[in-house]
Amino acid sequence: MGLGSIGGSLGLDLRSLGFRVVGVSRNPDTCQKAIALGLVDEASVSLPTVASAQVIFLCTPIAAIAKTTLELIPHLFPNTILTDVGSVKEPIVEVIAPLWQNFVGGHPMAGTTQQGPEAAQAGLFQGKPYVLTPTDSTPATAIKTVEELVRQLQAQIYYCRAPEHDQAVAWISHLPVMVSANLINACLQEPEPTVLELAQQFASSGFRDTSRVGGGNPELGLMMAQYNRQALLKGLYQYRQSLEQITDWVEGENWQALADLLRMTQQARPDFVD
Amino acid sequence: MGLGSIGGSLGLDLRSLGFRVVGVSRNPDTCQKAIALGLVDEASVSLPTVASAQVIFLCTPIAAIAKTTLELIPHLFPNTILTDVGSVKEPIVEVIAPLWQNFVGGHPMAGTTQQGPEAAQAGLFQGKPYVLTPTDSTPATAIKTVEELVRQLQAQIYYCRAPEHDQAVAWISHLPVMVSANLINACLQEPEPTVLELAQQFASSGFRDTSRVGGGNPELGLMMAQYNRQALLKGLYQYRQSLEQITDWVEGENWQALADLLRMTQQARPDFVD
Repeated sequence: MGLGSIGGSLGLDLRSLGFRVVGVSRNPDTCQKAIALGLVDEASVSLPTVASAQVIFLCTPIAAIAKTTLELIPHLFPNTILTDVGSVKEPIVEVIAPLWQNFVGGHPMAGTTQQGPEAAQAGLFQGKPYVLTPTDSTPATAIKTVEELVRQLQAQIYYCRAPEHDQAVAWISHLPVMVSANLINACLQEPEPTVLELAQQFASSGFRDTSRVGGGNPELGLMMAQYNRQALLKGLYQYRQSLEQITDWVEGENWQALADLLRMTQQARPDFVD
Repeated sequence: MGLGSIGGSLGLDLRSLGFRVVGVSRNPDTCQKAIALGLVDEASVSLPTVASAQVIFLCTPIAAIAKTTLELIPHLFPNTILTDVGSVKEPIVEVIAPLWQNFVGGHPMAGTTQQGPEAAQAGLFQGKPYVLTPTDSTPATAIKTVEELVRQLQAQIYYCRAPEHDQAVAWISHLPVMVSANLINACLQEPEPTVLELAQQFASSGFRDTSRVGGGNPELGLMMAQYNRQALLKGLYQYRQSLEQITDWVEGENWQALADLLRMTQQARPDFVD
């Protein structure tokens, strides 16, 4: 369900693994493109097309997942397994798990900056984290089936609870977008036009990297805030409190404390990224 | 004066342009290396070695510039031109301009992450901004002489007042370091070890870029805060105020305002960087 870059990439890989892949999109053009690009064996605008599938990947935008699932359920066999690819898990698991027992929340942490079926890539998930968030009542067979498919995509499988996933991605993905957007926003508040112009002329690799995700797709940033609001707020409150402390140190010329902090962040960063 | 990556790179380029370059470093090993690497024609640990130079580039760490200049002045002819390469200008210009008329503050905005004479590179300044901050009383001949040298390095020359330079670099270089370090710092405050571990495992390109300068050389970050304290504080106060507004919007689910902001930052970023 959904033949964008993630749905399309899943189709490509699963087909090359020998699975028969049936795609559904609301847009007939997308269906045609997906077939032409070899992302699916067949495609249709009609939901019931996927009813006979053993496993259905819900790859629509987050906002459409619940609605799509509600429309889909009357057409399914009871043992059909549903899994989604949404980048926030609790709001999805909360809605779908009570409606469909054989549902396993999922989040492949791979993506392209492009959208649509043309952006589909073979091997997109290889070596990337793929998080599964079953609940206590998710049947073991459903979990195992999804895990087996994900393993064949050569992704790195992680299991956690939906709220843990959401807080973790708030820290490393959603908070950075706000922190980065706010850097651009704050610079633009410079009251002297000459100084702002110099800042724009002098900006280089440091500003480029720190501002990159804040200058990205606004719809994605908004969606993160809407669907992961509580976890993002927790991040924003902590960020504010920590920044207050740094500001106090600079105000009070507590250089020892600032030096210790900068040494600590230098040492801690490799625990997150290479 | 100073044969690190900037002083050494200047020596390389100036020598290849046909100038005779005499280097001074407090460290005899550095002098030997600089000669061996072809960065200078001769080098010495003795300050008066440079006394006969027509133009002296002060390339020591910021903390040493004022002291070095005071030691140097008794050995100079009155028409010797001094210029520095410090990344903050007002504290340097404030001290040196009253002591030496033929002084032109400068900031080549190019650098390497490595330090020492081995990090010197030919063509390092080519196409990069090189800011000059003369005062109202700097003699035109001194400005013109430095400008001519910088032009031959193929740098892009900018003129502005020292405080304008300092506020501009606070926005695009020094504030990003604090914003980025504080992202790492805030994430580490996550109270649940499981969630912190997941965050570390899930962190990818977005976190990598946003946290890069905050995980960099702590001495450089500290130096920026110490020497550009007022301008950095102005940036931190504005950043805090803007972040407060974003937080309010997320709290109050004012999605329209957040969407407008993210669209604005997406549009504004290319005015700073490609």
